Amino acid sequence: MAAKKPLILITNDDGIHASGLIALVEAMRELGDVIVVAPDKPQSGMGHAITINSTLRFNKVKVDGALEAYSSSGTPVDCVKLAIDKILQRKPDLCVSGINHGSNMSVNVLYSGTMSAAIEGSMEGIPSIGFSLCDYSDTPDFNVSKKCTQVISKNVLAHGLPEGVCLNVNIPIGNKERIIGMKVCRQAKANWIEELDERFDPSGKPYYWLTGKFKNFEEGNQETDVWAIQNNYISIVPIQFDMTAHNALSTLKTWKNEI
Amino acid sequence: MAAKKPLILITNDDGIHASGLIALVEAMRELGDVIVVAPDKPQSGMGHAITINSTLRFNKVKVDGALEAYSSSGTPVDCVKLAIDKILQRKPDLCVSGINHGSNMSVNVLYSGTMSAAIEGSMEGIPSIGFSLCDYSDTPDFNVSKKCTQVISKNVLAHGLPEGVCLNVNIPIGNKERIIGMKVCRQAKANWIEELDERFDPSGKPYYWLTGKFKNFEEGNQETDVWAIQNNYISIVPIQFDMTAHNALSTLKTWKNEI
Repeated sequence: MAAKKPLILITNDDGIHASGLIALVEAMRELGDVIVVAPDKPQSGMGHAITINSTLRFNKVKVDGALEAYSSSGTPVDCVKLAIDKILQRKPDLCVSGINHGSNMSVNVLYSGTMSAAIEGSMEGIPSIGFSLCDYSDTPDFNVSKKCTQVISKNVLAHGLPEGVCLNVNIPIGNKERIIGMKVCRQAKANWIEELDERFDPSGKPYYWLTGKFKNFEEGNQETDVWAIQNNYISIVPIQFDMTAHNALSTLKTWKNEI
Repeated sequence: MAAKKPLILITNDDGIHASGLIALVEAMRELGDVIVVAPDKPQSGMGHAITINSTLRFNKVKVDGALEAYSSSGTPVDCVKLAIDKILQRKPDLCVSGINHGSNMSVNVLYSGTMSAAIEGSMEGIPSIGFSLCDYSDTPDFNVSKKCTQVISKNVLAHGLPEGVCLNVNIPIGNKERIIGMKVCRQAKANWIEELDERFDPSGKPYYWLTGKFKNFEEGNQETDVWAIQNNYISIVPIQFDMTAHNALSTLKTWKNEI
């Protein structure tokens, strides 16, 4: 009897029609049975949002290469929850999210719907990976990325991941020759310096677009994901959902906190 | 010359009209000058979502006890960004979020708009605290919570917080006599076992409410926030936005990742 094929859940935050999702399905169908559960519209910047004050829907749709595909009214994290509880017959062997159109380096892991879906996968005990291509052009070329998702996914299927850990993979722009290799690294200390772009509606009332400049506080530090991408490496950051600042526990225990 | 009063930014995820926010303003006005920037509607479960595919608005409103108050169309994290970039004249000395109506223990830190606002505050370099009262009744009594927010906020104003760290404070239900004290602890390993409640609309099509049971995998572990709350302690968990799983780096570096 042939070994059972891995069951692979695919989601994203750019929506079910995104070219990055199509590319990921094409890459993953060579590794296993693919089921897609993805948002019916772009959900970038949704972070770990879930839908609790309104209702969710999902509909079966056709995505080439997938065994089954569903589009959902929910957020990326909702999609993972829907897949686990309602759609899949068994727990998937792998949950992959992306390929995101644009980078999710450094602190962007917190804002990213792509990464939040992968984090949710790991919370459900599924080895999970979020993939992002650092290309903001209208028609990014996902060919190198596809190969990259296969190499890393095969490794995760073979070795598993430590409990409570998923991967944040960012792929630099460029062809295969330009990319030096893969680099396991950590989340760079960085931040967004906000600039709220003020405009005025036809009645003269102000409204704002949230925009900003990404500020890296660790320029040149080779241990960070930002350095890896800037130097044409694919960055791989292990991400955990235990957000406890363990190093801070002992200091805080010295405080007098009496009510 | 009298010492300058601390500038305190208050936000939440239950919306600007929530009784927990009013209680927090009442408590903080005794410690400093209070500016409120909060969502114009409930934003529970919004996690670290930001508004990037549509626009933001904010309006000046009246909140008793606050020097100024603004309601915004955005998420809790948007509110912090709006406050820093557009509303406040200077960086606040403290950012407090809540008092949330309901608990934000354990992994709920990831889903919680209350905590995401505090995390965003810490990303902006502001000592930040999220407060939640573990009471789901319609009219929770915030009196003990108010005292608790003052004690902890005074400590944070006096000592500061380590770089990249904010606090997740959960307050158990009950009067002052019932509460034993405060306990610095870590995020419990726990999860939600989803149950999507299926219903049918008038045209016969299914829709779903996201619900579930909270499952604690560390029952009885006195180091965890869930144990603290179950045993009538106020739990204080230091939370960091560096999500790198540092312990996993060395293992991952042994993988062959060649494209």
